[in-house]
Amino acid sequence: MMFDKANGLYGFILFGLVTGACGGAEKAALPPAPPAAPPADEGRPAASVDKSDPRSSATSGSRPLTNDEGMWLLNDFPSERLGRLHGFAPSQEWLDHVRLSAARVGMGCSGSFVSPNGLVMTNHHCASRCIEQLSSAKKDYIASGFYAKSEKDEAKCPEMEINQLVAITDVTDRVLGATKGLTGAKFNEANKAEQSKIEKECAKSDDLRCDVVTLYRGGRYHLYKYQRYQDVRLSFAPEFASAFFGGDPDNFNFPRYDLDVTFLRVYKDGKPLSGGHYFKWSQSGAKEGDLTFVAGHPHQTSRGITVAEFEFLRDVELPTKLLRLSEWRGLLTEFQTKGPEQKRIAGSRLFGIENSLKGIKGRVEALRDPEVFGKKTAEEKELRAKVEGDPAMKEAFGGAWDAIADAQKKLRNIESRYIMLEKGEGLWSDLFDQARRILRASTEFAKPNEQRLREYVDSRKPAISQKVNSTAPIYDDLEILTLSAALTGMRAELGPDDAFVRKVLGKDTPRELATRLVKGSKLKDPKVRKALFEGGENAVSASKDPMIEFARLVEPEARAVRKTYEDDVESVIKKNAELIAKARFQVYGTSVYPDATGTLRLSFGQVRGWEEGGKKVTPVTTLGGAFDRATGKEPFALPKSWIDNKAKLDLSTPFNFSTTNDIIGGNSGSPVIDQEGRIVGLIFDGNIHSLGGDYAYDGKDNRAVSVHSAALLETLGNIYNASRIVEEIKASR
Amino acid sequence: MMFDKANGLYGFILFGLVTGACGGAEKAALPPAPPAAPPADEGRPAASVDKSDPRSSATSGSRPLTNDEGMWLLNDFPSERLGRLHGFAPSQEWLDHVRLSAARVGMGCSGSFVSPNGLVMTNHHCASRCIEQLSSAKKDYIASGFYAKSEKDEAKCPEMEINQLVAITDVTDRVLGATKGLTGAKFNEANKAEQSKIEKECAKSDDLRCDVVTLYRGGRYHLYKYQRYQDVRLSFAPEFASAFFGGDPDNFNFPRYDLDVTFLRVYKDGKPLSGGHYFKWSQSGAKEGDLTFVAGHPHQTSRGITVAEFEFLRDVELPTKLLRLSEWRGLLTEFQTKGPEQKRIAGSRLFGIENSLKGIKGRVEALRDPEVFGKKTAEEKELRAKVEGDPAMKEAFGGAWDAIADAQKKLRNIESRYIMLEKGEGLWSDLFDQARRILRASTEFAKPNEQRLREYVDSRKPAISQKVNSTAPIYDDLEILTLSAALTGMRAELGPDDAFVRKVLGKDTPRELATRLVKGSKLKDPKVRKALFEGGENAVSASKDPMIEFARLVEPEARAVRKTYEDDVESVIKKNAELIAKARFQVYGTSVYPDATGTLRLSFGQVRGWEEGGKKVTPVTTLGGAFDRATGKEPFALPKSWIDNKAKLDLSTPFNFSTTNDIIGGNSGSPVIDQEGRIVGLIFDGNIHSLGGDYAYDGKDNRAVSVHSAALLETLGNIYNASRIVEEIKASR
Repeated sequence: MMFDKANGLYGFILFGLVTGACGGAEKAALPPAPPAAPPADEGRPAASVDKSDPRSSATSGSRPLTNDEGMWLLNDFPSERLGRLHGFAPSQEWLDHVRLSAARVGMGCSGSFVSPNGLVMTNHHCASRCIEQLSSAKKDYIASGFYAKSEKDEAKCPEMEINQLVAITDVTDRVLGATKGLTGAKFNEANKAEQSKIEKECAKSDDLRCDVVTLYRGGRYHLYKYQRYQDVRLSFAPEFASAFFGGDPDNFNFPRYDLDVTFLRVYKDGKPLSGGHYFKWSQSGAKEGDLTFVAGHPHQTSRGITVAEFEFLRDVELPTKLLRLSEWRGLLTEFQTKGPEQKRIAGSRLFGIENSLKGIKGRVEALRDPEVFGKKTAEEKELRAKVEGDPAMKEAFGGAWDAIADAQKKLRNIESRYIMLEKGEGLWSDLFDQARRILRASTEFAKPNEQRLREYVDSRKPAISQKVNSTAPIYDDLEILTLSAALTGMRAELGPDDAFVRKVLGKDTPRELATRLVKGSKLKDPKVRKALFEGGENAVSASKDPMIEFARLVEPEARAVRKTYEDDVESVIKKNAELIAKARFQVYGTSVYPDATGTLRLSFGQVRGWEEGGKKVTPVTTLGGAFDRATGKEPFALPKSWIDNKAKLDLSTPFNFSTTNDIIGGNSGSPVIDQEGRIVGLIFDGNIHSLGGDYAYDGKDNRAVSVHSAALLETLGNIYNASRIVEEIKASR
Repeated sequence: MMFDKANGLYGFILFGLVTGACGGAEKAALPPAPPAAPPADEGRPAASVDKSDPRSSATSGSRPLTNDEGMWLLNDFPSERLGRLHGFAPSQEWLDHVRLSAARVGMGCSGSFVSPNGLVMTNHHCASRCIEQLSSAKKDYIASGFYAKSEKDEAKCPEMEINQLVAITDVTDRVLGATKGLTGAKFNEANKAEQSKIEKECAKSDDLRCDVVTLYRGGRYHLYKYQRYQDVRLSFAPEFASAFFGGDPDNFNFPRYDLDVTFLRVYKDGKPLSGGHYFKWSQSGAKEGDLTFVAGHPHQTSRGITVAEFEFLRDVELPTKLLRLSEWRGLLTEFQTKGPEQKRIAGSRLFGIENSLKGIKGRVEALRDPEVFGKKTAEEKELRAKVEGDPAMKEAFGGAWDAIADAQKKLRNIESRYIMLEKGEGLWSDLFDQARRILRASTEFAKPNEQRLREYVDSRKPAISQKVNSTAPIYDDLEILTLSAALTGMRAELGPDDAFVRKVLGKDTPRELATRLVKGSKLKDPKVRKALFEGGENAVSASKDPMIEFARLVEPEARAVRKTYEDDVESVIKKNAELIAKARFQVYGTSVYPDATGTLRLSFGQVRGWEEGGKKVTPVTTLGGAFDRATGKEPFALPKSWIDNKAKLDLSTPFNFSTTNDIIGGNSGSPVIDQEGRIVGLIFDGNIHSLGGDYAYDGKDNRAVSVHSAALLETLGNIYNASRIVEEIKASR
């Protein structure tokens, strides 16, 4: 599966990365990444290079852009270039239709409207938290799948939100103006305050969501205005065994045979949304060589980070994270052996952990690849040399790289504490998250909007409120497991003699403390949370709930290390990354795509295989292949529905396919469309080589992996008898 | 705790390292490490440098030896230099007495004879496998401690062996003569055959153990002849809570408060051994500034590896190992929550894993330290430049580094398979180990001695037989857990489509296969094992025991990858490391110490603290400090015996102390002696900075950590009423 935020599915597991998170509804805003290499015009003969076209600036030859590289902005798409490369130049109207038909799903996935009645297609792994939340010991929809035979059977997801991007405005001048001449904490405060102000002006009602988006690591600021939908209901999901056939062993691999799909429906005022933009369905789907587009929300790439940031990720942050995830994997695996209910309730967490583990391993491998590192250092050297060679640029930008390297050194000293206390890796618990949310809401909402923590500004209120009021079940055993493990990890990382560790643990063992907090807290009950949340500062400060008290105990040190991080690290990186972005614009021109930041992007590519160890990998699998691969045992067991209905299937139907589209985690659930804007597939993964895409795109073997549109209709019709959905889709094609 | 082989306690967990293992009784012989930097004579004024003394060759100034660096051979000890530095020059007689009073304990620890009646002192963590094996659900000696009030109460350890080093002979000419002009597989075969031959000639009876020891990575070969004792009985052990007070959080840290001691007794012909060499006990023990010696068996240092080997360890081997250990830590931690019996039976394994985890983390940090890497590359560059500058040396040695780098590249391709199949990380199970041992013994013992796998030569037979006949219990649940985890890991590393993975798993899940093998096997019964072992090839090939059948299924691929490893990697490294060793001798002279290889070494140092974050760490703690640190909760809970007898104790008694002695894993249980050869302490750990000692010794902060001799007598007498032991020790002092 892709390496997504996935609707909060993996919680902070994916997003505790100091340099990783960006733009999540409730996460602190962190510095996004800088612009990538400038495009070269490989499609054009050298003689016709237009020197006035900034895109041709890379004829310096140093950094040729691979053909299909790029996660492009929908308001700055290289149509002309695409026309030259692939013979199709999308119009702005075409791009606008794509933007309005695409969906942002949950806190970190993508999706698409596929009917005029609010039907949204996304991945199973993007909706699995909802599916799990709607399940119980008696009815496990993860195992059995879910199909609402009629509209009234559609079940409301407790925490799901879907957004549609209705407008993009450039607000660069306002934001840069507000921070002019400032540095350090002052720079950071002004920068954040201005963004909060702009967002508040924009989000005039709760059904609008407005985010100021940092692009090119501070080179540009755009205001993204979304229609917000919080009444999202589950229509159809297959069994986990089919959605994630092949499990962890096959994850990030190809050939592949996964039906990783879920259909949701957006409701408005209690009725299915009607009359909006949507993608029509292709009759034939994609075949080898076809041009494909992917519209989605890649959450983060780091193609423009400096060498110092690269080294920190490679040597400190990611290896430490991998060790934590490995230990948690072991804990949950053994927890699952305790019984079928334990197996069920730990399912999505373990899935998320294994997915992250495999994903981060791939990233670390890319970071340790001497070729990737060599390319990174050469690029930085070239840009720095150009800056040094021009007195004005040297004066303006020359110190930026060293300043970031210094900030990384400071980060090394505080990273453990920051990750543990503020990013929550030392406090892994749904109940703790609720307690902190309620506690912080009570103090933050009492402040003026511009002075609040960024994730508590008014424009984020509906998302916070939805979380607080969620009816999702919380399980004591699992809470005790996660919180004990996290507290043990915190003690190990900070040391048993650390004053904070002593303060929170006292004479308790981590397990004793976790047990006492979890068993004693009443926050499992949404009504209790609601009362505290709505009661505000007075109610919360009077609360004797042990988890609220614990969150209060942690609060001073958590805020302190956050402040140190923001003032000494974040603001320095932000300020100087902005300078590097400016230098890069000056040297290479502006028509390059910015690093991914969780906002809507469009990539183009082709259905294509690759070579693996000298052998050709063909780009399309078939439904028959799934039956060939099945062993009958997890994770290679096809569900009963497949076995029973095998005879009804056309086994030659294309099932999964690989394309050269440049995507990354967050793109899960993205529609794959053809040049007519029709659905030909559904992104759900990348191959193992795509994991290095965080740092560089290599068209040679980086491949996106999708479910084929034909397999979707074939299985929904002939395995699941989901005729209502099939007809709705067919009617609109 | 130190990072030891520890009597097989951690099994392959510590020794699955491809470049790590060496000289273990049943482990394949792997290339040991090369000599370290030449010593500089820091104690002497520059004017008096004696140019004829090879030790002064490093006045090139490039690599000054820290004062107390060195794990010296007892037949090549720098007495003269020590005399200059510390005013005491040990005589050969003094050294011989130390050699004969020191003990090799189990498969990877150290110890010392401390009475004329065979009393041996070692660490609790070196004997804990025996203590656990003697325990049951009803009587848990790990928790309660053990004290034999009379000789007849002393309990025989099922798998313990103690060795005393009676002679060292230089056999370099024989071994080098046998391989002259050979390369690749031929070199390797001849090299091993000659070693097996020499050992067989030496070990004329089962009570002798003879090992040819590779020193200076092939520069020298010595024959070590040991008296072998297999009747080893448990006399005294404190509670785990006292032996490992502070647990994993305090592990490798200091100040420290651990009573990590166990007393064993060597029996011969059913009676306590009598009349041999032993260390007398110091009246006062060591105090700050005192000169200290440590005699023990450091199992491995890698101070002389090449840059290519360094990078492989840093980027591939150790990070992968850490992830496996982290996951296993999680599995066992959660397994322990299932009940008190599960907590008990998983105890020593979890302890071993946590110890390895912390130890390897420290090593990786050292490897990632740019300063350490810089020093390593500078050293290699200097030596290579000297070799290149001399036509004869260039001709003889010039290609050695690139040859090793090529071998590392080959290793990258086969490492996963080698580690999983042959080193056993994909087959983690006591029953599997027994099955493989019996299977291999049956085929190997049928071959001529020189043609066998090195760990099955005649001189190793007594150790193999002891293992096969061990009465140590084997627990199904734990076996299923470890084997499932290992098989899952193997599938992940080799891929679900790997032909070997498909062959062994078939359509089973890893857990199903593990359960079937463990539940179905009769090898838990020592009588069944004995019958197969003694029945030889016919009995074993007729066996239908599922674990024997499984071992047989695995065997062809395991042997194949071992052969590839030995022919393409090991032999190349061995041959070329030998060339580098020769080059180093030629350039720097011979009077340097060889890298540790699990053989007896003597290091010298002083009782000394260090500076940590600008604060002075004092080198001696007291018994009173343990009570101050206690919280009453694991792992900071002192046992009841301590609480009850607190009033009887002199709380100012020195408890643990730190010294500058250059030690490493395998030194656990080593005696700390003064210049009169009297016991002043008992090594049990190093501080966190000592972990980098694998790659370089830094006298600034690398410290060995010991239990003080005074605390040993004070607690044995006043807490444990172990008057029999106390009197025996006092009588001999």
